Amino acid sequence: MFLTRTEYDRGVNTFSPEGRLFQVEYAIEAIKLGSTAIGIKTKEGVVLAVEKRITSPLLEPSSVEKIMEIDDHIGCAMSGLIADARTLVEHARVETQNHRFSYGEPMTVESTTQALCDLALRFGEGEEESMSRPFGVSLLIAGHDENGPSLYYTDPSGTFWQCNAKAIGSGSEGADSSLQEQFNKELTLKEAETIALSILKQVMEEKVTPNNVDIAKVSPTYHLYSPSEVEAVISRL
Amino acid sequence: MFLTRTEYDRGVNTFSPEGRLFQVEYAIEAIKLGSTAIGIKTKEGVVLAVEKRITSPLLEPSSVEKIMEIDDHIGCAMSGLIADARTLVEHARVETQNHRFSYGEPMTVESTTQALCDLALRFGEGEEESMSRPFGVSLLIAGHDENGPSLYYTDPSGTFWQCNAKAIGSGSEGADSSLQEQFNKELTLKEAETIALSILKQVMEEKVTPNNVDIAKVSPTYHLYSPSEVEAVISRL
Amino acid sequence: MFLTRTEYDRGVNTFSPEGRLFQVEYAIEAIKLGSTAIGIKTKEGVVLAVEKRITSPLLEPSSVEKIMEIDDHIGCAMSGLIADARTLVEHARVETQNHRFSYGEPMTVESTTQALCDLALRFGEGEEESMSRPFGVSLLIAGHDENGPSLYYTDPSGTFWQCNAKAIGSGSEGADSSLQEQFNKELTLKEAETIALSILKQVMEEKVTPNNVDIAKVSPTYHLYSPSEVEAVISRL
Amino acid sequence: MFLTRTEYDRGVNTFSPEGRLFQVEYAIEAIKLGSTAIGIKTKEGVVLAVEKRITSPLLEPSSVEKIMEIDDHIGCAMSGLIADARTLVEHARVETQNHRFSYGEPMTVESTTQALCDLALRFGEGEEESMSRPFGVSLLIAGHDENGPSLYYTDPSGTFWQCNAKAIGSGSEGADSSLQEQFNKELTLKEAETIALSILKQVMEEKVTPNNVDIAKVSPTYHLYSPSEVEAVISRL
Amino acid sequence: MFLTRTEYDRGVNTFSPEGRLFQVEYAIEAIKLGSTAIGIKTKEGVVLAVEKRITSPLLEPSSVEKIMEIDDHIGCAMSGLIADARTLVEHARVETQNHRFSYGEPMTVESTTQALCDLALRFGEGEEESMSRPFGVSLLIAGHDENGPSLYYTDPSGTFWQCNAKAIGSGSEGADSSLQEQFNKELTLKEAETIALSILKQVMEEKVTPNNVDIAKVSPTYHLYSPSEVEAVISRL
Amino acid sequence: MFLTRTEYDRGVNTFSPEGRLFQVEYAIEAIKLGSTAIGIKTKEGVVLAVEKRITSPLLEPSSVEKIMEIDDHIGCAMSGLIADARTLVEHARVETQNHRFSYGEPMTVESTTQALCDLALRFGEGEEESMSRPFGVSLLIAGHDENGPSLYYTDPSGTFWQCNAKAIGSGSEGADSSLQEQFNKELTLKEAETIALSILKQVMEEKVTPNNVDIAKVSPTYHLYSPSEVEAVISRL
Amino acid sequence: MFLTRTEYDRGVNTFSPEGRLFQVEYAIEAIKLGSTAIGIKTKEGVVLAVEKRITSPLLEPSSVEKIMEIDDHIGCAMSGLIADARTLVEHARVETQNHRFSYGEPMTVESTTQALCDLALRFGEGEEESMSRPFGVSLLIAGHDENGPSLYYTDPSGTFWQCNAKAIGSGSEGADSSLQEQFNKELTLKEAETIALSILKQVMEEKVTPNNVDIAKVSPTYHLYSPSEVEAVISRL
Repeated sequence: MFLTRTEYDRGVNTFSPEGRLFQVEYAIEAIKLGSTAIGIKTKEGVVLAVEKRITSPLLEPSSVEKIMEIDDHIGCAMSGLIADARTLVEHARVETQNHRFSYGEPMTVESTTQALCDLALRFGEGEEESMSRPFGVSLLIAGHDENGPSLYYTDPSGTFWQCNAKAIGSGSEGADSSLQEQFNKELTLKEAETIALSILKQVMEEKVTPNNVDIAKVSPTYHLYSPSEVEAVISRL
Repeated sequence: MFLTRTEYDRGVNTFSPEGRLFQVEYAIEAIKLGSTAIGIKTKEGVVLAVEKRITSPLLEPSSVEKIMEIDDHIGCAMSGLIADARTLVEHARVETQNHRFSYGEPMTVESTTQALCDLALRFGEGEEESMSRPFGVSLLIAGHDENGPSLYYTDPSGTFWQCNAKAIGSGSEGADSSLQEQFNKELTLKEAETIALSILKQVMEEKVTPNNVDIAKVSPTYHLYSPSEVEAVISRL
Repeated sequence: MFLTRTEYDRGVNTFSPEGRLFQVEYAIEAIKLGSTAIGIKTKEGVVLAVEKRITSPLLEPSSVEKIMEIDDHIGCAMSGLIADARTLVEHARVETQNHRFSYGEPMTVESTTQALCDLALRFGEGEEESMSRPFGVSLLIAGHDENGPSLYYTDPSGTFWQCNAKAIGSGSEGADSSLQEQFNKELTLKEAETIALSILKQVMEEKVTPNNVDIAKVSPTYHLYSPSEVEAVISRL
Repeated sequence: MFLTRTEYDRGVNTFSPEGRLFQVEYAIEAIKLGSTAIGIKTKEGVVLAVEKRITSPLLEPSSVEKIMEIDDHIGCAMSGLIADARTLVEHARVETQNHRFSYGEPMTVESTTQALCDLALRFGEGEEESMSRPFGVSLLIAGHDENGPSLYYTDPSGTFWQCNAKAIGSGSEGADSSLQEQFNKELTLKEAETIALSILKQVMEEKVTPNNVDIAKVSPTYHLYSPSEVEAVISRL
Repeated sequence: MFLTRTEYDRGVNTFSPEGRLFQVEYAIEAIKLGSTAIGIKTKEGVVLAVEKRITSPLLEPSSVEKIMEIDDHIGCAMSGLIADARTLVEHARVETQNHRFSYGEPMTVESTTQALCDLALRFGEGEEESMSRPFGVSLLIAGHDENGPSLYYTDPSGTFWQCNAKAIGSGSEGADSSLQEQFNKELTLKEAETIALSILKQVMEEKVTPNNVDIAKVSPTYHLYSPSEVEAVISRL
Repeated sequence: MFLTRTEYDRGVNTFSPEGRLFQVEYAIEAIKLGSTAIGIKTKEGVVLAVEKRITSPLLEPSSVEKIMEIDDHIGCAMSGLIADARTLVEHARVETQNHRFSYGEPMTVESTTQALCDLALRFGEGEEESMSRPFGVSLLIAGHDENGPSLYYTDPSGTFWQCNAKAIGSGSEGADSSLQEQFNKELTLKEAETIALSILKQVMEEKVTPNNVDIAKVSPTYHLYSPSEVEAVISRL
Repeated sequence: MFLTRTEYDRGVNTFSPEGRLFQVEYAIEAIKLGSTAIGIKTKEGVVLAVEKRITSPLLEPSSVEKIMEIDDHIGCAMSGLIADARTLVEHARVETQNHRFSYGEPMTVESTTQALCDLALRFGEGEEESMSRPFGVSLLIAGHDENGPSLYYTDPSGTFWQCNAKAIGSGSEGADSSLQEQFNKELTLKEAETIALSILKQVMEEKVTPNNVDIAKVSPTYHLYSPSEVEAVISRL
């Protein structure tokens, strides 16, 4: 059966006889190898938390960016190929800037997510910004606009869903179960911080420190926690 | 025989010796994996109803959009790859907007359907909006124009048919049989709502709730039912 | 021998060692799977009649268009992939409109047919309107111009012939034999209607009704028969 | 040995290890399947005669055009794929028209032939008028210019030769032998008509009638014989 | 070992592991199948002589052109694919005309040869005048410029050499040996004519006549011998 | 398992079923064959040191450039394919020049690194400066800007990390271990020079001389050490 | 193992699993088949000497150019495919001319070498001057600029090195050993001439004559030795 597959993934964007797009499925595998990221939406705003794999003590932890700002009111956490994520984020930054310039107001979180997914969907078509393969990355997009806080989840197929809470990356299966148990709509932002970090702690194989996790919130603007702010959340666990 | 097939689906848009286009057939397979959608035309307007697969309780049901507005007088339900459907719908929205701007009147439902199918037919040709593979999606297009209400069904080959009632997606076979039994030209819109939902209920494996189905009508304008409006239909079953 | 074939149809437009173009031959197979269409030329005009396969009672018979108008004085019947036929017909409509605009007179039936065949011949060349594969459709083109009535037959290779009468599609073999027996140059249009429908009746597996056949004439302008006009012809059988 | 061939004809325009171009050789095979055409040059002008395969009594014989006018002073007979020949002839018509317009005088027969062969040579190069495969057709080009009457023969490789007499198509081998026996430089045009038709008669399997042969001459202008003129030649056999 | 080759000639312009370009080597094979051509340089000018294969007595010998004029002061003999040679010669004619127009003086023989080879080298690159495969032809380029008479030899790789005498085509091996024996720098043009024709006679399988050989000289301008001039040389053998 | 790989690296930028990009992984192999380079960040500036493989005593050591200046305040050391590195460095030089010209201030080290990685990520897309394969080179980018000294490490996937110290190339594994033992944040630039060279000495198989190593610093401007300056560092070992 | 290779050289510019670029390695093989060339740098200037393989006594030795002038102050010797070398040299000539025109001063030898290597590196990218395969040629570039005399060596990968002395081509291995024994920095130009020719003599299988070797120097301008100047060097051996 494995051999049959190899017949279909030659064209980067071709259906198999069962109606599957293997290159997209393989890109999703790339994300299962990635570090874990968690997002939780509360009434007060959205919390993002990520595991950072620091392979060497000589690496500068702050340069392993797995949470990035897109605009004042939107940030995202990522899992998968970081270079691919940077391209998507850079695209989203330009889109949100252009929107502000053209319309004098911030782009909604959904429109920003849609713009990212349009780019992701069109791989293999030789257009200007598109890749010759699927983008090997999933994003958790946290934002706050006229509809209040929102959290979106995108995958390499260019599909997106709105979520109350979501985990991506190698530890996502266990983390998603924990989120379902612990999430409720009345969570405060502070409680969400604690839940996100406690779940990350479960899936990580080493001690949680300000060096190997990052936390950010959009409430209502994007803020990446300083090491001491992360330390404070850790101390609450 | 299966091996012989693999010889022909390499080129995305190539005939097999029997005169078949396998990539289109494989895309049709993708739709058989999709969620079920139903459309019923009545004299008073058209009803669309879809099953929404909510894979996690943390997913925002309203963000799983399987019914979308194209223009004031046209909406559509979809089954298959949602990201592909969004591209088609976005294309149709631009076409109908342009038509309104150029001619000062709404585009007919058939012309809108034809425009969608033109895009679907031309896959593999490297043009601007076309895909490098067939669009893996079927649409039920409900509309109302100078000819009254109408319901169209499109498939990945770029072919379309006008129908009185039609089901697409994984449960379409059983649903179509039920529609043939229950449809008659004198149905009221309210009766059509009830029929659509009762058939969806048969093909879904879980209890029908406002969270896992969506209903919309075009009568004569597009309207997506609120959770309480859906609840009201459910209560009539 | 079948395996040897597969070596040659990879390139969409490549000769086999015996000097054959397999993709064109495979496209011709697609037409042999199509519904039957019949054309008969008389001194008074040309009659076209087609079988419509209505796969579901919920399908709107009038939306299964297998006879289409190209210009006031030209219509065509088709067998094969309907979406392909629509592209050809749309191309011909633009050509005939442009001709009227540029020269102030209708395009001749032969020039219109040649324009359709030019497009069909150039598949696989990446040009604007051309397809990446042969058009999987045959047309019977009925028209009336300064040379009187005429009937043309085109195939996927881009070749065309002028005929007195011709059948295409899955029942064409038997229908062509019947046409040879029954055709003579002195037929009236009314007699041609009756012959066309009686032959269609032989090749169709179900009862002939206004729902599952269409009839049109060009005499000297295009006219698609209403259900009652079709009923009238059926009653003469 | 046959299998080795298949390795080389994948690229449409690639040499085999023996220095052969298989796609061109395969296109030449296509011509061996074609109907027979004969050209004879006399001092008074050139005669062209072709077999027309009328596959059905309902086909309009005059629409099976195997002899075509290029310009007042040039005509051609063809064997092979008729749709390909039409493209070449259309190209030559434009070239000769342009030449008349630019220089105020007719294009020579050799220049016209060279222009046709330039187009034929460049297949597989993605240019505007070129094909993605060799043109599957041979032409006999009859003309009359300042150098008097001339007859050229072209093949799918884009090569041409000037001849006194030449046969192409499925019956060409026997016909060429007969031409060598019967040709001499003192033939009158009338004698050439008789020879051409008597040789055609030998290679055709059915009775020669004005319906299944065409005759044309360039002497010094192009003239396609009417059925009664053809009948007159037949009666001389 | 032969199978290994087939792995490398798929890309038209790709090195094999041994550093060889097989498509170029295969094109050189095409020339070994060609008719023989001979060039001899003398102090008085350059002589070119070619074998013409007249496959049918009905072929016009003068239309089998294997020696062509490039400019007043340059001519060339060819072996291999004649249609390819015509493209190269046409390119050289344009280049030499442009040079005369731009600089008011003839192009040197070496620059003309270099221009031909630039075109030959760049096959497979999709540029305007280049071919999608190597040109399957060798040329003997005879010319006379400010440096006196010169003879160049080109092959399908786009390489050229200056020679005192050279044979190309199927009989080139034997002919080159004979040339080495008989050539000396003091030859008169008349002696060179005789040597060229006597060597051609050895490699040809039939009697030498003005019909099956062509002779030309550049001394200092290009002149193609008339049949009687050729007859005169034959009579000296 | 090795054979399965070969199925996936045909497309230069395609995922394998496990979600891997083999061409990128193979390019990383190319770097493991390269010479060793070391970077160490101190408070006073950054030190770069590289091994130079001088394969022949006749080679000019100074022409084997493995450390290059990008701008006054940025330099880089490289391991892998030198020609690829030159292309990246040239790209970065243009970017930093343009930045100075447009904004009147130097480009930050991170922006410069990002610009290099953008180019590296987009291989296989046929754009102007991009390669048709991954760049087979890793860089250590040393710089000094408003944030003080910084050291970045890039790999062929277009990913980058900020480091305190890092080794790349064939000896990187052992060198990285040594760096972790010896690095501390209080190192002086002079101590860093000594550590870098002593580690290089361990991984090189020959005696360290000014001919086979290069040292540079950015403190705060780029400076490549002269042979005598290198000699001075050697003498301290 | 050999078969595994064939999997990777299909794409002209693709890494193998071990991080190798096979097409470049195969092009390097093409150079190992080439004639030997030697360059020696002295304080007084640079000497180039090449073996010329005169395959026939009828070939004009001076037309076998293996040493070419690039600009007044730069020349180069080559080994490998001569037609490829001509393209590179022509490119360098245009670059150096443009530099003189734009800046009013000669281009440095290193910049000229870099320009050649940029072109060589970018094969397979479909750009204007680039080839669809690596250039199958190595160059020894001798020049003299503001930094005095210099000698560069380039290979098909687009990499270059500065050397004191270097041999390329089929005899390079033995010649390089001899150069290492005999080279010292105090050589006079005259001594370098003698060494270069004596080493060439060892690797050539025939007697050295002015016909089968070429010598040139850049001191400080390019000069190709006349046959008598070559004879003078030979007589000193």
